[in-house]
Amino acid sequence: MISKKLQKAVDNNSTIREMFEEGKRLEKIYGKENVFNFSLGNPSVEVPKKVEDAFFEVLKEKDSTSLHGYTNNAGIEEVRSAISKSINKRFNTNFTEENIIMTTGAASGLNIIFKSILEKNNEVIVFAPYFMEYNYYISGYDGKVVVISPNTKTFQPNLEEFKKKINSKTKAVLINTPNNPTGVIYSEKTIKEMSKILEEKQKEFNHDIYLISDEPYRELVYDNKEVPFITKYYNNTFIVYSYSKSLSLPGERIGYVIVPTKMNDSKNIINALTISNRIIGAVNAPSIMQYVIGKCTDETVDISIYKKNRDILYNALLDYGFTSVKPEGAFYLFMKTPIADDKEFCKKAKEYNLLLVPGSSFGCSGYVRISYCVETKMLQKSLKAFKSLSDFYKK
Amino acid sequence: MISKKLQKAVDNNSTIREMFEEGKRLEKIYGKENVFNFSLGNPSVEVPKKVEDAFFEVLKEKDSTSLHGYTNNAGIEEVRSAISKSINKRFNTNFTEENIIMTTGAASGLNIIFKSILEKNNEVIVFAPYFMEYNYYISGYDGKVVVISPNTKTFQPNLEEFKKKINSKTKAVLINTPNNPTGVIYSEKTIKEMSKILEEKQKEFNHDIYLISDEPYRELVYDNKEVPFITKYYNNTFIVYSYSKSLSLPGERIGYVIVPTKMNDSKNIINALTISNRIIGAVNAPSIMQYVIGKCTDETVDISIYKKNRDILYNALLDYGFTSVKPEGAFYLFMKTPIADDKEFCKKAKEYNLLLVPGSSFGCSGYVRISYCVETKMLQKSLKAFKSLSDFYKK
Repeated sequence: MISKKLQKAVDNNSTIREMFEEGKRLEKIYGKENVFNFSLGNPSVEVPKKVEDAFFEVLKEKDSTSLHGYTNNAGIEEVRSAISKSINKRFNTNFTEENIIMTTGAASGLNIIFKSILEKNNEVIVFAPYFMEYNYYISGYDGKVVVISPNTKTFQPNLEEFKKKINSKTKAVLINTPNNPTGVIYSEKTIKEMSKILEEKQKEFNHDIYLISDEPYRELVYDNKEVPFITKYYNNTFIVYSYSKSLSLPGERIGYVIVPTKMNDSKNIINALTISNRIIGAVNAPSIMQYVIGKCTDETVDISIYKKNRDILYNALLDYGFTSVKPEGAFYLFMKTPIADDKEFCKKAKEYNLLLVPGSSFGCSGYVRISYCVETKMLQKSLKAFKSLSDFYKK
Repeated sequence: MISKKLQKAVDNNSTIREMFEEGKRLEKIYGKENVFNFSLGNPSVEVPKKVEDAFFEVLKEKDSTSLHGYTNNAGIEEVRSAISKSINKRFNTNFTEENIIMTTGAASGLNIIFKSILEKNNEVIVFAPYFMEYNYYISGYDGKVVVISPNTKTFQPNLEEFKKKINSKTKAVLINTPNNPTGVIYSEKTIKEMSKILEEKQKEFNHDIYLISDEPYRELVYDNKEVPFITKYYNNTFIVYSYSKSLSLPGERIGYVIVPTKMNDSKNIINALTISNRIIGAVNAPSIMQYVIGKCTDETVDISIYKKNRDILYNALLDYGFTSVKPEGAFYLFMKTPIADDKEFCKKAKEYNLLLVPGSSFGCSGYVRISYCVETKMLQKSLKAFKSLSDFYKK
């Protein structure tokens, strides 16, 4: 008696759960320390001290009914103001609290955007490889996902195909940079060209096309690479952010959406997002988390740990004869599989106690995602297994 | 460029916002202490000491990456187990962690249920007066709201009309007891008769009809009144709970849904709710809140304060010549307006600095909702204004 749409989601879910169960099964047989689980995106670096302290501070400073009471559906004004100031300082922008809506994480941010803008059969363009949960967020509001095939050389978006696939039904384009699963940062050149195409197409079809930038990994960047701040290039941009990765708080569900004033009809859209936040059941982002964030807007976790992991993993894999684009941010590495069938490769990897996610789970077969948000010790211990796996395919 | 559905919600929203703005305007003119705001449902009684302590305990006991990490989409197993044990003890039930899904409050609980069960044009029955946000939760998943007119004598559900309005499209019935806005508890007799009707109609139409019990006020009950625990009367029952009122934590968004094992196809439905929790963007209920609740499953706020408020308000209003059913739970009083036009009455009340919500906002005109989750001092101070308001209509 569950709805057809949901029954489909339940059926699809079995793959992920199987992997999870398989991990637990292997741990029972070989011991937890001998199973190399690279399948999850759960941050491994500890929460910054300042954030931990902020919990104690807000608990001591505020009386219980205001600390834990309902907040505005858009979030606490002072917190939104503090966030806007931090962003302005770092990205040379000009936002105020009016431009910011606090959300229960980026997943919720994307949901309230799609709930606000999508009409039945509107199309949303995504670039493979991409986080497949987007399919649910989009179809949940009767939108259609249009996938642009990957440019496997650089993993920058394929803009030729993009240009061709924009049509009168295109309502939005969803990007994720630094990217899950490739770790690639979309370059300024990419963003400029993409914006130019969108400007042209808005004119051609005479309606707004939104660029939605999902950027929970914005602060997880290596080698001083810069992540272009998208609102500078295109007016109809939504920024969707989460503190899940930058502060290692994924379980707390705290993030925000930015709607720039220069977006068409921005006030009405801010209202719509605020109301969507209420009626999808989030109501407001968790209040204690809002107060904590308000005290820690400039903090990030110790990124050097992820960088160290990236260097160890990337260098080792190349050494073993694997190939991959070098991750510039996030904590994922997207490795080419030596055989075309990535699921088969993952099965084989499991024989070496390596748990990897097939690229086909991101709309890009022939690859695997390796999440290196793990203990460095475990990563080092796992290298032998990667070496053996490589040797197996060299035979 | 926002969707038609959302544009409607934005337009509807103006009334609530106007009231909010009006409150702020009056406070500026007369001073905060001279404006009697009875329009909100924000708990006024402080968070129990044990709950406040639990925040400090979990922050000290757990390492940061596990305290703030992703949890299962259904929630932390030990927390769900602790909750099930507390419920079993108090209501003589037989649940385990398998029956419980942690949610970001009751609003989210209702959303994941409707997302899981509703097909386009399925009908959901509600009983006026009712919390109008239900309309959004139901229509958000393409369901239709069918309203049963109020029984204004007792404010128990009108079961005659209910029976007639169940048809082949009826998918669910949504009740809220103790009730917002009346404070009435649906009696055991009501629940038994309702269940009997539903059993008959399930047979007649040969499909499951769900009874959804939204009960954030379950613990806010006066004079030792009992709230029937619905799963005992009807197998296809969802219990939707929130700690917003019972622990004064509305901003933290923490609650749960119970799916009894004896519900048809319960395992599949539990899966569907768990996946819905993920894909509506909640992902998991805030993790620190789950751990806190796990330590406080038997706690409630000091209900005697709300009872005191109820007694003062109810007795005074009756004394002034107003009429109302006596609230048995929650923190609302639903008063008959001396004129038929409840909006006009609210306008007049505002002249006495009394902010009330018209009953028509709950599908029941000719009444107003008075939220007495306020400081007792303020309530006492406001009585003069209620008296003057009454006198005005006696002239």
